Amino acid sequence: MPEQTTWFYEKTPFDRGTSLGVKIVRKIVEKRSAFQTIEMYDTVDLGRMLVLDGVIQLTEFDEFSYHEMFVHVPMNSHPSPKSVLVVGGGDGGMVRELVKYPGLERIDMCEIDGDVIELSKEHLPFTSSGLSDPRVTLYVEDGAVFIENHKREYDLILIDSSDPIGPAEVLYKRAFYEGVKGALKEGGAALCQCETIFFFLPLIKNFISAVRDLFPRLQYMNTLVPTYPSGMIGQMVCSLGPDFSSPVHVLPEDVAKGLRYYSPNVHRAAFHLPAFAEREMGL
Amino acid sequence: MPEQTTWFYEKTPFDRGTSLGVKIVRKIVEKRSAFQTIEMYDTVDLGRMLVLDGVIQLTEFDEFSYHEMFVHVPMNSHPSPKSVLVVGGGDGGMVRELVKYPGLERIDMCEIDGDVIELSKEHLPFTSSGLSDPRVTLYVEDGAVFIENHKREYDLILIDSSDPIGPAEVLYKRAFYEGVKGALKEGGAALCQCETIFFFLPLIKNFISAVRDLFPRLQYMNTLVPTYPSGMIGQMVCSLGPDFSSPVHVLPEDVAKGLRYYSPNVHRAAFHLPAFAEREMGL
Repeated sequence: MPEQTTWFYEKTPFDRGTSLGVKIVRKIVEKRSAFQTIEMYDTVDLGRMLVLDGVIQLTEFDEFSYHEMFVHVPMNSHPSPKSVLVVGGGDGGMVRELVKYPGLERIDMCEIDGDVIELSKEHLPFTSSGLSDPRVTLYVEDGAVFIENHKREYDLILIDSSDPIGPAEVLYKRAFYEGVKGALKEGGAALCQCETIFFFLPLIKNFISAVRDLFPRLQYMNTLVPTYPSGMIGQMVCSLGPDFSSPVHVLPEDVAKGLRYYSPNVHRAAFHLPAFAEREMGL
Repeated sequence: MPEQTTWFYEKTPFDRGTSLGVKIVRKIVEKRSAFQTIEMYDTVDLGRMLVLDGVIQLTEFDEFSYHEMFVHVPMNSHPSPKSVLVVGGGDGGMVRELVKYPGLERIDMCEIDGDVIELSKEHLPFTSSGLSDPRVTLYVEDGAVFIENHKREYDLILIDSSDPIGPAEVLYKRAFYEGVKGALKEGGAALCQCETIFFFLPLIKNFISAVRDLFPRLQYMNTLVPTYPSGMIGQMVCSLGPDFSSPVHVLPEDVAKGLRYYSPNVHRAAFHLPAFAEREMGL
């Protein structure tokens, strides 16, 4: 006798009148950490799914888009990246992509919620696989405090945060980006998860206003992620100088063949936004 | 006292374990036509919405993406488009974009379901506004029969159909594309709604196999449409020769300023697909 279908319906913090439903097999984790409610599900068609405070963070089906673009775009645009800090990213997907580069010497990850890391190691092997690389150091700390103690140490800072409600709220404030700027080496850049152009353009514009005078160059790229609200998500590149909108390195062949989203052409295309978004952002 | 929130949940014909929910104010139309069930809703955040057989066809919020790309990409890549046929497209959105070009002499639209046209004229003025242009002729007929009687008449044929289940099924068959090819003038092209790369790549590959030897050039472009499954939709360009992946005309300024999605850069970027899709399609 077939089981009755169970649906998970996302509750997004910024309601734009839509909600994604995902057909699930079962919930495998529900834990209230010190910071948030962590849930993991097995879904019918999208593999395993991580949910924080009711919001889908990733599914096994489409997390590759987000993590590949967040890592391979900056790694192929920065002239010589040696040291990278990931803020957030407890599932490990960012680190999994970073460890593909033999030239990287130091990968620090600062995640405030140790439970996300531990549960990801246990239940999300497809993202957490890179965390055991010897170049990786995990810090279970508040990213905003961490960066204040690491001046001019990183070529890239990748801010893989949840939405600006809840534990990640501080990661969207000007004060945090003053610290981020201070933690970057000359010619470095920070990238942050920066919402979606169709639903949350006003939030993106607020962010631009908050940090515009801190960074000589702001660049926004769009990535297709079907299980995020509106089917996409953007990253803002806050650069101390270099242009991140096209690659300056030849992607090593053994990296390229493992990629499912990123390519040099996709890299360049991601920075060309629909006319309304380009006009409104005025970057 | 606030009304209780009502949600519309889409039933997609090809179930990939997700379903978009849209918060609605009220249903304004429900009609069983000779071909399908037509519904229209007022939504809370996305304006008016057209639904055919349970599947979202457009919302006032994001239909511009789809219609602008479907029209302005071919209009700016074909060397000299004078006559265009729209198959389907009863809501009028395609024609609204086409009539912006003074150089177009003939715009035929062949929609099988006259009820869609009439209800769109009544309830969807934002898409149906162009249907009264003197260059437009509406045919309420079966597109597959229509094209057999119009040999070598069109520079562009734009197939704005619903999914390949229901009344549009015939519009995805090889036999139909043999007719389409015959209805095109030399150097012309047909574009068709061609599903989404994340969810329905096997369908796209089937389509490629079915029509590959009919057209010397097949090119696939991706467009962001938040209310379609996975937040995007693709169009296949079936070209008798010209390359449609970049514009060859300068977009007239008065056309450009009214556009919310299309730009020459977006045109070029739309043909650069995520690595997995490019590899699998092998175009």
